[in-house]
Amino acid sequence: MKRSRPIQIDWQPDKKSQLPVYRQIVQYVCDKVANGEWAIGSRLPSQRALAESFAVNRSTISTAIDELTSYGIISGEHGAGTQIVSNTWSLMLPTSLSWKKYISSGYLQENNKRMQQINRLEFAPDIIRLGTGELDPRLFPQQMWAKTLQKLSTEITSLGYAEPLGIPELRQAIARHMKKLGVDVSTKNILITSGALQALQLIASCMLEEGSTVFTEAPTYLKSLQMFQSAGLNLNGIPMDHDGLKYWEIEKQLKKSDSAILYTIPTNQNPTGITMSNLRRQELMDFCIKNRLPIIEDGAYQELCFDDEAAIPLKAIDDNGMVMYLGSASKSLAPGLRIGWVIASEPVIQRLGDAKMQMDYGASSLSQLVFAEFLNSGMYEKYLTELKVELKKRRDNALVTLDKYFKDIATWNVPVGGFYIWLTFNDEVEIDGLFEKAIDQGILLNPGDVYDFKHNRSLRLSFAYVDCGEFTSAMMMLNEILKS
Amino acid sequence: MKRSRPIQIDWQPDKKSQLPVYRQIVQYVCDKVANGEWAIGSRLPSQRALAESFAVNRSTISTAIDELTSYGIISGEHGAGTQIVSNTWSLMLPTSLSWKKYISSGYLQENNKRMQQINRLEFAPDIIRLGTGELDPRLFPQQMWAKTLQKLSTEITSLGYAEPLGIPELRQAIARHMKKLGVDVSTKNILITSGALQALQLIASCMLEEGSTVFTEAPTYLKSLQMFQSAGLNLNGIPMDHDGLKYWEIEKQLKKSDSAILYTIPTNQNPTGITMSNLRRQELMDFCIKNRLPIIEDGAYQELCFDDEAAIPLKAIDDNGMVMYLGSASKSLAPGLRIGWVIASEPVIQRLGDAKMQMDYGASSLSQLVFAEFLNSGMYEKYLTELKVELKKRRDNALVTLDKYFKDIATWNVPVGGFYIWLTFNDEVEIDGLFEKAIDQGILLNPGDVYDFKHNRSLRLSFAYVDCGEFTSAMMMLNEILKS
Ligand SMILES: Cc1ncc(COP(=O)(O)O)c(C=O)c1O
Ligand SMILES: Cc1ncc(COP(=O)(O)O)c(C=O)c1O
Repeated sequence: MKRSRPIQIDWQPDKKSQLPVYRQIVQYVCDKVANGEWAIGSRLPSQRALAESFAVNRSTISTAIDELTSYGIISGEHGAGTQIVSNTWSLMLPTSLSWKKYISSGYLQENNKRMQQINRLEFAPDIIRLGTGELDPRLFPQQMWAKTLQKLSTEITSLGYAEPLGIPELRQAIARHMKKLGVDVSTKNILITSGALQALQLIASCMLEEGSTVFTEAPTYLKSLQMFQSAGLNLNGIPMDHDGLKYWEIEKQLKKSDSAILYTIPTNQNPTGITMSNLRRQELMDFCIKNRLPIIEDGAYQELCFDDEAAIPLKAIDDNGMVMYLGSASKSLAPGLRIGWVIASEPVIQRLGDAKMQMDYGASSLSQLVFAEFLNSGMYEKYLTELKVELKKRRDNALVTLDKYFKDIATWNVPVGGFYIWLTFNDEVEIDGLFEKAIDQGILLNPGDVYDFKHNRSLRLSFAYVDCGEFTSAMMMLNEILKS
Repeated sequence: MKRSRPIQIDWQPDKKSQLPVYRQIVQYVCDKVANGEWAIGSRLPSQRALAESFAVNRSTISTAIDELTSYGIISGEHGAGTQIVSNTWSLMLPTSLSWKKYISSGYLQENNKRMQQINRLEFAPDIIRLGTGELDPRLFPQQMWAKTLQKLSTEITSLGYAEPLGIPELRQAIARHMKKLGVDVSTKNILITSGALQALQLIASCMLEEGSTVFTEAPTYLKSLQMFQSAGLNLNGIPMDHDGLKYWEIEKQLKKSDSAILYTIPTNQNPTGITMSNLRRQELMDFCIKNRLPIIEDGAYQELCFDDEAAIPLKAIDDNGMVMYLGSASKSLAPGLRIGWVIASEPVIQRLGDAKMQMDYGASSLSQLVFAEFLNSGMYEKYLTELKVELKKRRDNALVTLDKYFKDIATWNVPVGGFYIWLTFNDEVEIDGLFEKAIDQGILLNPGDVYDFKHNRSLRLSFAYVDCGEFTSAMMMLNEILKS
């Protein structure tokens, strides 16, 4: 066993916390051991020195030491002071998550911390969430749910393990639904997943070789980046213009030897709100065929085009089976359902289905049945129509507000659907400071940086979570902050 | 590009299949390419030779070739006959599932085929499923479901992304529930998963280093074996006796240098039905502490002890945080809910929770709310009491039946709960032949081999899926087959 460096203590317990001080110390030591900073064999300072470092009294240290000893984390048996010992924890908490091994961009890693902060603040009471990528809970179609659950309450007579690809009724309903979006496929081309994120996870873990390159829009959906990184894939962000991904920028980066794939959100993109023009879509398809570059098309916001003709899925013009399409009920309906789907060629669906069975044995049958009933009853379509009217109203209000207060200092796009407006300041703005000051005023922002491969001076605004009044007043406050 | 071996055709389409012959050929070629047998650059035989090999006419071959060409799998452009070409598929279907890379036991791999056959036959009409590890759908507590869904139909007013560890109500309900089983923990020690299988997946992929050893009972739950193999772990099967795992057999195999973990199903084990005695449990704990061997305790059948005192979870006597306990609603209630849970120390739960968020962003909130309501209303406990009475009746009937027809040719255990009786023939029996003949009589068997590390002459019988009459008549038929 190699000699290890002496342990450094750089932290003190929070005496105002609800957690007893000795528990905080135990937690601190566990974390240090868990994350590998304190190696097995390291010696702890004496109890007196510990008491001093932590600024607590000896009895607290001794309680903490007892607890840590009982965990098997430390031991004093060796007659050489207290040591971190080989123990079950060292196995159970290896130095790092294996899927964090391959971080190809330290920049994204950093952003994670900001994102964690945002996730925490989302649960703060009375905060105005100006960037949240979720529908306003006040738009929840309660009646549709009530009707459906009541119907199912008498119809469900068993809930066994379901078929690998998902419940047939739902796959049929999705086939019909996708047809309306221009995608004509059979149920054999459809796999139900526990959300679109899981679909990405399945693709990343069973279809892409480690070290492959994933081209994505820059900026893009944050969790997709984390997912791809975890799977040991190399990310390559490609810029966009008004018409969407500048696919020609990919060509320079394509190394013939590498396997590569394109991940794109062509419709109502997260976070920019950009929708790829239909001309660009056709050009992109031609480019991908020419370069044998398969496509993951993330259609999470596909159903939220205010004008139905606005955007035809790439999958609808895919004659070569190049495209795997991902759908989701999360953005148009409710993330808590955890229902998504993949549309792809049969062997691909079979393989992903096998993988899905190994992961979790299929998505909740209950969720599947509920969503099938929404689709089959026609209620979903009706709901969607109304939802889009409401979202459009909110978008229009957002644009009027921006025009009024931000015209001189920023630019933005006009989204044709979805949730997002991407606001970019003309001049460099200290976004971190803005974020903190906004928090003080009860406004939670999503800085554009979080989603990007490099620094930007943008904000992801969402008109989906807050209503018109909230949006306007938050933007007015933001304007005040910027002025000061 | 390396020159590749000429293609060999060792298969002919099934002309009686519902699938058109040309589709079967397309599928066959896709599979060969997908599994890497036919490398990129390989040349296909001439159409005439293909027609001969597949025993079909030329026009069928030509249809198949057209389809394969349109997929981009093959190409005839190179003036050198038809070739397997570099294409998107070669990326999308790499030579093997990456998680199948590390198969440490060819024996298990083989068994997979039998298992696939069993899975298919389970959907055959009128088949008596004598080994199925699921509750009889006729025992589905329809009233409890109806009541709960009706209640929730008015109570659910939004379903956003849920908290990483799962919905608090459910975690509280599970904490109370586990207390009744002797396990006293707080909600911070509980993570909700999409079934126990996903919990295993999470543990395998983020807590165990590749190459670690997993000790399991031999035989054991099949999907756990596949899961561990996929994660690149080495399996080591340990025999059992009447009192459960012979833990002392582990000692010889423990290499001090390797990290290792024990996966055990101490209560109503799958597939043997064995329940570890309470004395053995204590000894096992002592052994694991001494050897710093952490434990995954699979409690999928824990709630199905006919006598509540029968078996105390290892987690209940775990003073050292050695045990991660897995619970599930699948065996006692309904697999289609996809609800399971992990109980472990806080940092472990935090880490698994992070992993879960990357995998699928949490379990279905709808399923979580339903199960919470079952638990909180007290309906679940009442249902469980009745269920156990019924299962016990079925077990008793099974034992009487076995005594009557199999006493002279086989031995079996008396399970104190769960689903399974493990029947072992005294003399070598040609189990494959028995399986096929049973199928002819409309009986589906689960040969014990499937679950084991080596050949055995056992059957996993389940008294949970079939009722008393069905069990008895199936066993009588089996007896007839054996006599002949
Ligand atoms: C582009 C995109 N894809 C997928 C998802 C996740 O969808 P799901 O909830 O179906 O996993 C999101 C959620 O933010 C998203 O923005
Ligand atoms: C021992 C054991 N654990 C876990 C499972 C799977 O449970 P779940 O449906 O919760 O994933 C099974 C199902 O057969 C099982 O037998």
